[in-house]
Amino acid sequence: VVKIAVVVTARPSYAKWKTTLEALRDMPDVELQVIVAASANLERYGAVRGVIEADGFPIAAECWTVLEGENLLTGARETGLALMDLASIYHRLQPDIVCVMADRREILAAAAAAKYQHLKVAHVQGGESSGTIDGVVRHAVSHLADVHFPCTNPAKWRIYGLTGSFDIHNFGCGSVDLAKRAQSEPLVTEDELGGAGAILNLAKPFVICLQHPVTDEADQSHAQMWETLHALPHGLQCVCLWPGQDAGSAGISKAIREYQETYGTLHTVRNLPPSRFLRLLTQCACLIGNSSAGIRESAFLGVPVVDIGNRQRGRQRAKNVTWVPHEQSAIRQAIARQMAHGKYPSSHLYGSGNAGQQIAEVLRNVANDLARTSKSA
Amino acid sequence: VVKIAVVVTARPSYAKWKTTLEALRDMPDVELQVIVAASANLERYGAVRGVIEADGFPIAAECWTVLEGENLLTGARETGLALMDLASIYHRLQPDIVCVMADRREILAAAAAAKYQHLKVAHVQGGESSGTIDGVVRHAVSHLADVHFPCTNPAKWRIYGLTGSFDIHNFGCGSVDLAKRAQSEPLVTEDELGGAGAILNLAKPFVICLQHPVTDEADQSHAQMWETLHALPHGLQCVCLWPGQDAGSAGISKAIREYQETYGTLHTVRNLPPSRFLRLLTQCACLIGNSSAGIRESAFLGVPVVDIGNRQRGRQRAKNVTWVPHEQSAIRQAIARQMAHGKYPSSHLYGSGNAGQQIAEVLRNVANDLARTSKSA
Amino acid sequence: VVKIAVVVTARPSYAKWKTTLEALRDMPDVELQVIVAASANLERYGAVRGVIEADGFPIAAECWTVLEGENLLTGARETGLALMDLASIYHRLQPDIVCVMADRREILAAAAAAKYQHLKVAHVQGGESSGTIDGVVRHAVSHLADVHFPCTNPAKWRIYGLTGSFDIHNFGCGSVDLAKRAQSEPLVTEDELGGAGAILNLAKPFVICLQHPVTDEADQSHAQMWETLHALPHGLQCVCLWPGQDAGSAGISKAIREYQETYGTLHTVRNLPPSRFLRLLTQCACLIGNSSAGIRESAFLGVPVVDIGNRQRGRQRAKNVTWVPHEQSAIRQAIARQMAHGKYPSSHLYGSGNAGQQIAEVLRNVANDLARTSKSA
Amino acid sequence: VVKIAVVVTARPSYAKWKTTLEALRDMPDVELQVIVAASANLERYGAVRGVIEADGFPIAAECWTVLEGENLLTGARETGLALMDLASIYHRLQPDIVCVMADRREILAAAAAAKYQHLKVAHVQGGESSGTIDGVVRHAVSHLADVHFPCTNPAKWRIYGLTGSFDIHNFGCGSVDLAKRAQSEPLVTEDELGGAGAILNLAKPFVICLQHPVTDEADQSHAQMWETLHALPHGLQCVCLWPGQDAGSAGISKAIREYQETYGTLHTVRNLPPSRFLRLLTQCACLIGNSSAGIRESAFLGVPVVDIGNRQRGRQRAKNVTWVPHEQSAIRQAIARQMAHGKYPSSHLYGSGNAGQQIAEVLRNVANDLARTSKSA
Repeated sequence: VVKIAVVVTARPSYAKWKTTLEALRDMPDVELQVIVAASANLERYGAVRGVIEADGFPIAAECWTVLEGENLLTGARETGLALMDLASIYHRLQPDIVCVMADRREILAAAAAAKYQHLKVAHVQGGESSGTIDGVVRHAVSHLADVHFPCTNPAKWRIYGLTGSFDIHNFGCGSVDLAKRAQSEPLVTEDELGGAGAILNLAKPFVICLQHPVTDEADQSHAQMWETLHALPHGLQCVCLWPGQDAGSAGISKAIREYQETYGTLHTVRNLPPSRFLRLLTQCACLIGNSSAGIRESAFLGVPVVDIGNRQRGRQRAKNVTWVPHEQSAIRQAIARQMAHGKYPSSHLYGSGNAGQQIAEVLRNVANDLARTSKSA
Repeated sequence: VVKIAVVVTARPSYAKWKTTLEALRDMPDVELQVIVAASANLERYGAVRGVIEADGFPIAAECWTVLEGENLLTGARETGLALMDLASIYHRLQPDIVCVMADRREILAAAAAAKYQHLKVAHVQGGESSGTIDGVVRHAVSHLADVHFPCTNPAKWRIYGLTGSFDIHNFGCGSVDLAKRAQSEPLVTEDELGGAGAILNLAKPFVICLQHPVTDEADQSHAQMWETLHALPHGLQCVCLWPGQDAGSAGISKAIREYQETYGTLHTVRNLPPSRFLRLLTQCACLIGNSSAGIRESAFLGVPVVDIGNRQRGRQRAKNVTWVPHEQSAIRQAIARQMAHGKYPSSHLYGSGNAGQQIAEVLRNVANDLARTSKSA
Repeated sequence: VVKIAVVVTARPSYAKWKTTLEALRDMPDVELQVIVAASANLERYGAVRGVIEADGFPIAAECWTVLEGENLLTGARETGLALMDLASIYHRLQPDIVCVMADRREILAAAAAAKYQHLKVAHVQGGESSGTIDGVVRHAVSHLADVHFPCTNPAKWRIYGLTGSFDIHNFGCGSVDLAKRAQSEPLVTEDELGGAGAILNLAKPFVICLQHPVTDEADQSHAQMWETLHALPHGLQCVCLWPGQDAGSAGISKAIREYQETYGTLHTVRNLPPSRFLRLLTQCACLIGNSSAGIRESAFLGVPVVDIGNRQRGRQRAKNVTWVPHEQSAIRQAIARQMAHGKYPSSHLYGSGNAGQQIAEVLRNVANDLARTSKSA
Repeated sequence: VVKIAVVVTARPSYAKWKTTLEALRDMPDVELQVIVAASANLERYGAVRGVIEADGFPIAAECWTVLEGENLLTGARETGLALMDLASIYHRLQPDIVCVMADRREILAAAAAAKYQHLKVAHVQGGESSGTIDGVVRHAVSHLADVHFPCTNPAKWRIYGLTGSFDIHNFGCGSVDLAKRAQSEPLVTEDELGGAGAILNLAKPFVICLQHPVTDEADQSHAQMWETLHALPHGLQCVCLWPGQDAGSAGISKAIREYQETYGTLHTVRNLPPSRFLRLLTQCACLIGNSSAGIRESAFLGVPVVDIGNRQRGRQRAKNVTWVPHEQSAIRQAIARQMAHGKYPSSHLYGSGNAGQQIAEVLRNVANDLARTSKSA
């Protein structure tokens, strides 16, 4: 039996892990060790931990490291704390491989804690090019990783250019697996959605607004969200989701509260489990904001997207995405164009819906090779 | 006045910083902030902190993070602790640039703590290719850095390949500045050298043996040092230095103690200030082990070198270096060849002795540009 | 000049420090070092840090250690983090005395970090007897302290019994200094108060409701607050303040939000600077909840108080306080009785309004004695 | 089944735990969780961890927190780190009781980490009165503890005075259990003892010298050990043990090395498992230094003891102990007197040799009561 540890640190990355975790759990010769770290433990960032357990994955270890303050200092300090704690957790669990995803600050800690203890590191979703500090972290983590699972072909070549590694596998993104699955699931109803604010009729056209802070524009997050919200056409139904954790979240939340106190026209939702979000995405007329779901899942689903600002800059886009800066009028016009266009044909730019199974198989093989090597040594 | 922070974490990197620190200190429009971190605070790794103060650099902050245990777990954990503490220190000192050197584990923490707080990062001695985890850290730090001061031309091109940055300046290595200076200084005498063990006559030929543990061969460090020591020819005077801090140091120290208890023919020295080491290097007949001084300073000085094992693998070498594996007979033959050959002509592969002044000038300019930008903003 | 460090970790204790800080700041031979730690740095616990700066005290050091999660685990872990960071801060500031207040978990860390470095520790507000873990922390800190400033005579004797120390001075509580001062200041107006919810007329009778979670009843905090809120008589104006940080805060906040969504009869206020709170207290008809202001400041002011539950258990009370358990009907009856009674005569049980000056003088003398001793040594 | 966690942080306290651990391990309804923390993980403080495993106790968790530097700052910081890590460990293991021993700095962290999470705390060896910071820690821990196992009757009354608790049980000290057992075991031979330096004949009279640094006299540790070593009579065989970890250890070790380099008359031993130490103690003519074994085990064994300096100040002594200050001549005379006197009759001041079994039974009962209470709740 080989031991494969997967570190989950945030709501969006759990969605991308889910089909891989299912595949690993179903392999009889694999012991799956789910490590819940950073914001994934916290209620106020979507209580991912509870979602993981409800999805049937036992939690092997937890790591509470997020500092209150949500500023650049606490952001740096909590990364150090995560490195320290994850090092002890890996030492205890002794995994054959540690798997990390993407480019949040704490991922550098999760990868270094493993690499510094001579454990193999697998990195999912590396090699992409994007603005902000995420891009820096992503490439730094590629250097710390031994096996790479990028989600696009350009990302694959970029990782090769950085590392010279031959262990790079592009199976697309796990989020697309879920998007594909969501297409055959029941529609979200108003009751199931829950939330607060304006009353919704999901049978009629509605948009989803999901905008996260951009780390190095944290001080502008409030102004940016203000532009987006004021660009929403009157009378258009809007499901507005609260942002994930990062420097600047407070600004976005404040803009939502202020807008809502003035107009009350949003329907706000705090905790949306990944699968429900995707089913809602299949139903919506347009996704507005800067979520990676606009780039990835929406490509496969053909959902029209208005992508705002720098957060997804440099990422490959299918035809369904229109980019605009943080300007009310530009955003308003783009929404109008996308609402008029309607659904796009499905694009396989970010995968065709079976990434999880393929990633899991490679992980098992790598872990088995390691186990064989160390036994014969 | 611009504020430039320099993080010193170990004895060997201080030597490479020294001429840069002197140049920065002498600039009236620069406030130099020396931060002493990791093993640089500790007596048992050469008491670098005291050397820095004796050299006339006031210490702006100190950071005690090295954990006892010297194993892979504590090595990872103390990196997290360093990240956490350095983040607070930068927050307090508010430097315009944070400067880090080379590739020790804690350097990733020192760079991330700055970058995550949106401070500019300067990285000295990046871009080199070497075996072991150092190479991984070095390239990851290049991604976190904004300004780069590699020491060789191939390193310069490699950093460009990794980062696409145009802010890359090769002025050679600060250690060569000191090597050049050492040539015009008085010779080391037996009294000045101090130490224990066999009595030396420095007027007669002697070798220096300096072998550090290789992080991912830590469990072999004792055996490796055993091979080296038993390769020393009978009757050859040998100044043997104790290793720097890292997983595996204990094994090397043990081998030295055991050899000394049996033969007593080594002259062992614990604390050798960088400048004294370099003067001794100009005097010695051959340098044996895996110190970077064999690759860099010795290239400029033309000192014959027997470089052993993987620690310097992939580094560019001038003609003065002979490489051998950790095998007694191979080492013995290489020592014989190098003793027979004698001094080599000086090579400028790692610089021509004025790196510090040039690095300091670029740092000042970058910091001034930043200060101007933020003032006009 | 002697150096006196004062560690401020929370909104309520800052109020009690304020007159001492003023007195220390005005002493020419004292260097006051204010250290802002734990929740005192955070917006969501009253942004005490900004209040301190606005009051004209420069901040010598800050310490960001509060972990998100607000559970027993993070509560314990953040205490360790505070101990670690405060140790480094004291080492840098080199105070002659470190002053800490009362009994929050992090105070044990603040005292131990000093005592373990052989610094003198002054403890304000020790020796009181109360339920919950606070009492345990308070007595443990008394053992770590060298000079004691209890606020009541029974507390003074208790500290003597625990420690055998003769360095125990009862000058009353600094909060009473501010209560006395508030009596001669202008009344709070509706505009100055700010806040949200029901519209207030402060010229008519109103009550203040301020209820904090009890650490070891954290899971009941929501139910407890529910009882209190539902005990409020219809038509009675109520200024309801949000709770301070601790395990269970979320439950109390939730109860307030729920009550407010249903009835909307509360006037809620998030950030109430200490001085404004005290002026409001002089105006109110009754204080309801479990705040220590009901026990201390209200004694001096003669304000009727309904004290609920275990949080203030064991504390000495003047005649103005009626205690009830967390039961709606008991609370409702007590409110009615206190509203009917009206103001009480002033009690000096917790001091007569000049504690700060007296504490500062003793601190200066102790610090001077130390300085003399170490100079002569 | 109830879960009882025992935190072992140092060599001397493990010896006192041993018979309790054996009794707990043999109880079918108890799950024993041994947590190895602080210096107990480290080779250079006696590798206690290996001794524990060799004694047949599986290790449930380990905690690496000792910082290099051995000064007051690192001593304080590592306590914070221990608090943070132990909190996570308790959270994972969910013990019904956490057991801690005595008064080392980290014990305050071990107790607070449990108490702050509302776990029951058992404290062994509280209530004694002694000089130095240990006494402060010991009493502070008594306040954090719920069940107390002091080792003497005066200590029992003192804990009652401090805490008012009725849960105080004096069964003597676990070290005496081992001393009793050692009396019926084979004598230590020269081969078994190992070590370095002068050759011993254990059949002839010899003394044991064991002197630890006194935390708040850390800067005098070298001078203190110098006095002791130079007081040893010429020709007297002496087994000299290296000191335990604490600020000042380096000074003592240095004094031993210097003395040995000059005279070479000591027989130095680095790792002496507790049981072997006790067997050696039954054989020796006199114990010299400041070890608690001189006060406790030696009382039961009747071994003559020369107790030096403040480390054991305030501890109850049987007739076998002579106290002297750190003065060469006083120490020399005391050694002469004790050598002349020979063995003393056995004293039961610190127990009669069955403490472990009795402590274990009370712990089991307390844990069972808790389990019943929480089940019925």
